[in-house]
Amino acid sequence: MAKNVEGFEFEQRHGKERVRVARVWKSKDGKQQFVVEWRVSINLLSDCVNSYVRDDNSDIVATDTMKNTVYAKAKECSEILSVEDFAILLAKHFTSFYSQVTTAIVKIVEKPWERVNVDGQPHDHGFKLGSEKHTTEAIVKKSGALQLTSGIEGLSVLKTTKSGFEGFVRDKYTILPDTRERMLATEVTALWRYSYESLYSVPKKPLYFTEKYLDVKRVLLDTFFGSPKEGVYSPSVQATLYQMAKAALNRFVSILTLSVCLRKYIYLSIVSDEGERKIKRIW
Amino acid sequence: MAKNVEGFEFEQRHGKERVRVARVWKSKDGKQQFVVEWRVSINLLSDCVNSYVRDDNSDIVATDTMKNTVYAKAKECSEILSVEDFAILLAKHFTSFYSQVTTAIVKIVEKPWERVNVDGQPHDHGFKLGSEKHTTEAIVKKSGALQLTSGIEGLSVLKTTKSGFEGFVRDKYTILPDTRERMLATEVTALWRYSYESLYSVPKKPLYFTEKYLDVKRVLLDTFFGSPKEGVYSPSVQATLYQMAKAALNRFVSILTLSVCLRKYIYLSIVSDEGERKIKRIW
Amino acid sequence: MAKNVEGFEFEQRHGKERVRVARVWKSKDGKQQFVVEWRVSINLLSDCVNSYVRDDNSDIVATDTMKNTVYAKAKECSEILSVEDFAILLAKHFTSFYSQVTTAIVKIVEKPWERVNVDGQPHDHGFKLGSEKHTTEAIVKKSGALQLTSGIEGLSVLKTTKSGFEGFVRDKYTILPDTRERMLATEVTALWRYSYESLYSVPKKPLYFTEKYLDVKRVLLDTFFGSPKEGVYSPSVQATLYQMAKAALNRFVSILTLSVCLRKYIYLSIVSDEGERKIKRIW
Amino acid sequence: MAKNVEGFEFEQRHGKERVRVARVWKSKDGKQQFVVEWRVSINLLSDCVNSYVRDDNSDIVATDTMKNTVYAKAKECSEILSVEDFAILLAKHFTSFYSQVTTAIVKIVEKPWERVNVDGQPHDHGFKLGSEKHTTEAIVKKSGALQLTSGIEGLSVLKTTKSGFEGFVRDKYTILPDTRERMLATEVTALWRYSYESLYSVPKKPLYFTEKYLDVKRVLLDTFFGSPKEGVYSPSVQATLYQMAKAALNRFVSILTLSVCLRKYIYLSIVSDEGERKIKRIW
Repeated sequence: MAKNVEGFEFEQRHGKERVRVARVWKSKDGKQQFVVEWRVSINLLSDCVNSYVRDDNSDIVATDTMKNTVYAKAKECSEILSVEDFAILLAKHFTSFYSQVTTAIVKIVEKPWERVNVDGQPHDHGFKLGSEKHTTEAIVKKSGALQLTSGIEGLSVLKTTKSGFEGFVRDKYTILPDTRERMLATEVTALWRYSYESLYSVPKKPLYFTEKYLDVKRVLLDTFFGSPKEGVYSPSVQATLYQMAKAALNRFVSILTLSVCLRKYIYLSIVSDEGERKIKRIW
Repeated sequence: MAKNVEGFEFEQRHGKERVRVARVWKSKDGKQQFVVEWRVSINLLSDCVNSYVRDDNSDIVATDTMKNTVYAKAKECSEILSVEDFAILLAKHFTSFYSQVTTAIVKIVEKPWERVNVDGQPHDHGFKLGSEKHTTEAIVKKSGALQLTSGIEGLSVLKTTKSGFEGFVRDKYTILPDTRERMLATEVTALWRYSYESLYSVPKKPLYFTEKYLDVKRVLLDTFFGSPKEGVYSPSVQATLYQMAKAALNRFVSILTLSVCLRKYIYLSIVSDEGERKIKRIW
Repeated sequence: MAKNVEGFEFEQRHGKERVRVARVWKSKDGKQQFVVEWRVSINLLSDCVNSYVRDDNSDIVATDTMKNTVYAKAKECSEILSVEDFAILLAKHFTSFYSQVTTAIVKIVEKPWERVNVDGQPHDHGFKLGSEKHTTEAIVKKSGALQLTSGIEGLSVLKTTKSGFEGFVRDKYTILPDTRERMLATEVTALWRYSYESLYSVPKKPLYFTEKYLDVKRVLLDTFFGSPKEGVYSPSVQATLYQMAKAALNRFVSILTLSVCLRKYIYLSIVSDEGERKIKRIW
Repeated sequence: MAKNVEGFEFEQRHGKERVRVARVWKSKDGKQQFVVEWRVSINLLSDCVNSYVRDDNSDIVATDTMKNTVYAKAKECSEILSVEDFAILLAKHFTSFYSQVTTAIVKIVEKPWERVNVDGQPHDHGFKLGSEKHTTEAIVKKSGALQLTSGIEGLSVLKTTKSGFEGFVRDKYTILPDTRERMLATEVTALWRYSYESLYSVPKKPLYFTEKYLDVKRVLLDTFFGSPKEGVYSPSVQATLYQMAKAALNRFVSILTLSVCLRKYIYLSIVSDEGERKIKRIW
């Protein structure tokens, strides 16, 4: 992406952060309603050095225009779609509509609106906010090359037992005692990269990625907690992270890499062998 | 509370904010575990003018001591109890343990840990964070007089239809069009005051207030959303607030007053006739 | 404010939160520019029970209209004015323009834009954000009665020495040791009520309240820190709060009451004798 | 850093976030005091795969130990030092003290405590919080190789005039009008990488990096605002960013690259020719 300009290596992008958009769809009989609320951030890599060095803005897509595009494109979606599909659709628009845009990066955070139950029945048009959030990032190049990542943000979990930490390095700065019995409360962030390498290989099933998100979340949680009666002993957060990542990666062939992170500072990323080969080939 | 000091009317209090404490209990067979996590704030009204005007701290309970007391008292609770009962217990401790403390105000926010399901079964020791929060405030006087308020914070709800707003004041500053069809998304805060007037009249049932909290929340939500198929038309947020407050107040005789607030700035508080009589008599 | 409606005591208000408005003025020669950025919150107490109980919104001022009014009124201000004067002007508008509005409560937080220096000279149109914030609240009744409060938010201060805390209550929950030498870092919030009782008695000098704000802040800070070389010993935050409040109240006759608060939980409010008499007479 | 483990490419790190430490120093005559408050985050890249896959924690430095190390090392600093020097010192400790640690990443945010003036004189021990923050990141390898970056966070600036935006792409999604007269308010984040490539080439002058930080900030601000009377016209935020980055990079030879970012989403990074050569050689 870097260019040489007036003797400097030059790297730039510009975009619009946190555009909020909501979209409602109705079932065919008009009775049941569906809703999504997305917070969209867009970054464009484009050929617009003139605006930096020659006061010529003719290659600049205004960030206000990006915001309007989000609204217009959401309105055009006549059928419900996953947050991943909307991110791809937007990114594709920017790279194909504007000749100077070489790459578009679209990140979206979906607000966790969940259908409520009233009198034991799902409500036709009532929703309540849940907790953890579904995120996605689509990077699309003008060639149609795609890098698609999905994730979970703010998944707070707690085990009241079956957790320990012992045998770690002990030196003059160490106070923490060894233990085989402690409470483990943490916030999980996960990110996984899908194997689809181009706009044209993405599955067409409307809510394919929404289901995948729920599947991955379930596998991560089940691995963290273990069975309902026995649970599973965690000898370290490191070991637990690895079990979680491995379970998800082994289970879903369309996922190449998965990273899991606790409280932002204990981080593990693993990549399947096939993932490694593919990633090397493409990017 | 005000005193005259050196020619000034004088009002003071001191306390400790946001003490975090977690407590785990086990079922009798040791299999199932229960957990609460509380963020406790304490305010003491006490006779300690000397610390303000004569550099004499002998009547001051250090805020660090208040923090330690929260931990010690949580540890002493051998049986699971509601957040309201813990607030009362703490406030009572401060007014009875310290001769100079005339009133204690204890506010607690409970983190919404919810038991997870794995393989369709409730997990014995696994929890996940939910969304809206249960709050309480207990004000206890040395005499044993009690004012107990409970509440819900951060309850975000959304109706995709059955909401309108029309016929409001129209003048030269008005742009908003009339509508009978809009989406209504808002954040509900509710507070209700219980009728128990003294430490000695509070129900002894261990999770009495926890159940009451769930009951009130259900009535507020059901009234907001209406039936699962039909819903209920909201002609204004004002009308909806009133329906919610009235439903809860009519349903629960132990509740004297209830206030509901949307996005902090549309506010309604209603008081039952009996509530009015009681409040006038006591405070 | 409370009314009896369908057997309930009834208290309500509605309003709009956090309307952001910025306004620029130029000096007469057009060279120097001045800017304010305000975050305005409005609450109206009005006669609009019909909207709650009879689906009749004809007495409701839409919150969107309130927002538009803020913009319109800011635009009409052709001369620079203090945040207090703008709050009063807005509140007065709502109570006089709408027959059903009995009281308006306008709170404003001013963003601390400060003129920058470049090459040692004040810049004509360049500003940088400072830290603590100037706040105000004007409560205006239809009669013209006024209650005006100003304040400081987020004033973080630190003394590296000349602070202690000893001789406080010591019991089985106490761990904190006595000390005569500690660092004192805290966040000060202050609120003071002016003596002006009606819209018609407020001083006409354009930036009167802005100067007063700077004066009060200086007295509070000077009292907290003491002289540049010696400082002043603080035997407790309580004693320091009292010294601060007393210094400000003794110095400024137009201030009736002053409250100072550290980290939200050590609170002192003092009222001058004359303040006490006035407050009793009016409200 | 990646390893192959059980058929997975494997990348991991662990660390401790947001350790708060404050440190006070006195002048030699004991009169004047100096204070820093740092929020330290540490990440270690180390050879501890056994903890992930074999329940063996013997290579893990506990995050609690990292926290204790921060306190211990701050205490050992008998002379005032820059935040950069403390980050380097800590990172060096982790890579040299622990055989399994190959790289340490230490990020620090310094709270902007500023000496107050009382009666027109600088106070010996009184400080008030300012606004924008000085940040740094030191990456140190066991070999002694160093990558040192410093930055500014939260620098909010505003020009009331001399800003425009015109001639940008205009299409069916564009609403924004062209203008040559607008207000420009934004938040600047800047990061710059120093040329020092090893622990042993860093300047020994105690507050060298503190001065450099103030110098860079001054150049960025002066370029943004222009001269006190004339200012400087900004034809786009892109052009202004480039002027700012170029001015700083041309002025300070010890800086290889500089990136500036407005509201997180308009981003420019430039690298000097020499910087490009050096970066390619080392990393």
